Amino acid sequence: MSADSLVPETRVLAIASHVVYGYVGNKMATLVMQLLGCDVASLNTVHFSNHTGYRQFKGTRATAEQITELYEGLCQSHLTDFDVMLSGYAPSAAAVEAVGAIGMDLQCKAEKSPGSFFWVLDPVMGDQGRLYVNNDVVPAYKKLIRHADLILPNQFEAETLSGIKITSLSTLAEAITAIHATYNTPHIIITSVDLSKFTQSSAQPTTTPSDSLTVIGSTTRSDGSPRLFRIDVPALDCYFSGTGDMFAALIVARLREAVFAADPQLRTTKSWVSPDEVQATDLPLARATVQVLASMHSVLEKTMEARDAELRAADIRGDELLSDEERLKRQHLRKSKAAEVRLVRNVQYLRNPTVVFHAQDWKKEDLPARSQ
Amino acid sequence: MSADSLVPETRVLAIASHVVYGYVGNKMATLVMQLLGCDVASLNTVHFSNHTGYRQFKGTRATAEQITELYEGLCQSHLTDFDVMLSGYAPSAAAVEAVGAIGMDLQCKAEKSPGSFFWVLDPVMGDQGRLYVNNDVVPAYKKLIRHADLILPNQFEAETLSGIKITSLSTLAEAITAIHATYNTPHIIITSVDLSKFTQSSAQPTTTPSDSLTVIGSTTRSDGSPRLFRIDVPALDCYFSGTGDMFAALIVARLREAVFAADPQLRTTKSWVSPDEVQATDLPLARATVQVLASMHSVLEKTMEARDAELRAADIRGDELLSDEERLKRQHLRKSKAAEVRLVRNVQYLRNPTVVFHAQDWKKEDLPARSQ
Repeated sequence: MSADSLVPETRVLAIASHVVYGYVGNKMATLVMQLLGCDVASLNTVHFSNHTGYRQFKGTRATAEQITELYEGLCQSHLTDFDVMLSGYAPSAAAVEAVGAIGMDLQCKAEKSPGSFFWVLDPVMGDQGRLYVNNDVVPAYKKLIRHADLILPNQFEAETLSGIKITSLSTLAEAITAIHATYNTPHIIITSVDLSKFTQSSAQPTTTPSDSLTVIGSTTRSDGSPRLFRIDVPALDCYFSGTGDMFAALIVARLREAVFAADPQLRTTKSWVSPDEVQATDLPLARATVQVLASMHSVLEKTMEARDAELRAADIRGDELLSDEERLKRQHLRKSKAAEVRLVRNVQYLRNPTVVFHAQDWKKEDLPARSQ
Repeated sequence: MSADSLVPETRVLAIASHVVYGYVGNKMATLVMQLLGCDVASLNTVHFSNHTGYRQFKGTRATAEQITELYEGLCQSHLTDFDVMLSGYAPSAAAVEAVGAIGMDLQCKAEKSPGSFFWVLDPVMGDQGRLYVNNDVVPAYKKLIRHADLILPNQFEAETLSGIKITSLSTLAEAITAIHATYNTPHIIITSVDLSKFTQSSAQPTTTPSDSLTVIGSTTRSDGSPRLFRIDVPALDCYFSGTGDMFAALIVARLREAVFAADPQLRTTKSWVSPDEVQATDLPLARATVQVLASMHSVLEKTMEARDAELRAADIRGDELLSDEERLKRQHLRKSKAAEVRLVRNVQYLRNPTVVFHAQDWKKEDLPARSQ
């Protein structure tokens, strides 16, 4: 294995959850970034046995004080020379605030060198129309987000942050525009939008196969307007946990790589915002996202194959002795385990993605009049 | 990067300390095993900002109950199909006992398939003649060790376990023989013995350059006698933290690989103990150790280069304004940070070690008469 396929040297502070078994949160993000060549400091916000998708787990949550204390430990020994911070799940509003204070302190330390520190924030609040954090976490995130350089909400989180229900391409564009404007957010990616659920009329202008997912991104222009791009990827018929964390980790590595490959001025520009003349599809954010999705698609395809093989080989003797409820629970546990993302044997797909996806420019005037 | 350079698929439960910044304990061991292709579940016994070699750190220790609870979380969701357990630092005697109970439970679960589960135990108690754990941790380890398949004491820990002060090659052999006998331990490796500190007479029979370290290993024969081998490696003029954890992680991966490359019967033999006719230097333990030391030597050499470059480039402006005490502290912190082992950019040396070291057979009759 050569070092050629590594991204530029990048020191990352990753703040998210830890699970003993499997790959979500920091357990996923840390490894993914390390495999791409990043030096990762991992500050864990929870210590759980496994991810919550199993519907049962044991362990403890870090308090806001414990999170702050670990960061103070880094500060007192001068261990804060991070290029990027990636913040994910925090288990309470106070913990979100503690993480926010860390991000702001690192920004403050880097103030004199624009572009030398970049904060990627995944505002983990919920999914599929449902909050899975306490209500007070939402306002905590709303205060924080104006400090982040790139945020990675899913569709539900983008709705929560923008206050706009996303039911069409035009409301999607509105939500992104609103987030840019309200929070002064330089970069946004909305991970996995299911356009096939939009009303027919609004999805018409582009042919979106019903079995595909769309990722929408935007880097703001100097007037605050969005520069939108979209990338359609085939959806896989399987539910995986930790894919949001995988996306976040990959984008950290790939975005910095894309910025380093762009005009040298960009990397010393605050928040790495490209000049206005750069088209949406030429943005480092778009180039990075294309790479990220290619890696994810291959790794998840390999995971699906491995999952199917594991489930076929599963020893289900004894299942028939269980009650219906117990049997279903056992099946769910088995499926959850089998669907753990396979990373360590699939590093080549992270490092040298081969699948080709394309970013499409997506201008507001392309939208059908009646959906605007 | 091809998958060819990966070790056989191995599921490991790694129980050790976590640090946010840098590479010791589970932060080191987990990554090293992952980079070699192992699927690692990481159960963290402490959550510290950085390693204690910095002489200051913040964070919390897991209680024995928290360690046990995380394992119960794995059990209840059937996430315990581990091939290997690697246990390292535990922060109290009760925590050592909790870790021990986990190892014994996993052994119990694998009882019907000899060789299907293997426990590597690093009895972290102290170094350089000094305990750095509470006194009650020693008897806790002494109870545990009889259950482990391979133990990795340093010279001081081997003395503590055997009750024999190691001052010569013959007392070293005696200590290993005593550990095999007292604890019924199948495999032992004493990491880093400094033979140059032995009395001249006892070190005479072999030429040991004064700037080399010796690793001594042994797999027991069926009569309980040791099969000793030694490997001399050039010592590097630098103190690194986490090298014991790095050794342990590499030996987990490489030993299983060596066992898989040996007679197929071996992998279904309890504790992977080779038949009596296998010579010391042909033992999978010896073959694995050779690989491990080659990887370590290259990675540490690269680390030393990077450390020197980092220290040369260090911004020491302002140091002259500090008191002597503060300046020395600042220098120590800078050196500690610069000496953090460089893993993520040096994966090729882990996967495809190129340096060649040799294991030497080491029989008791080779020892000089007067030192026996």
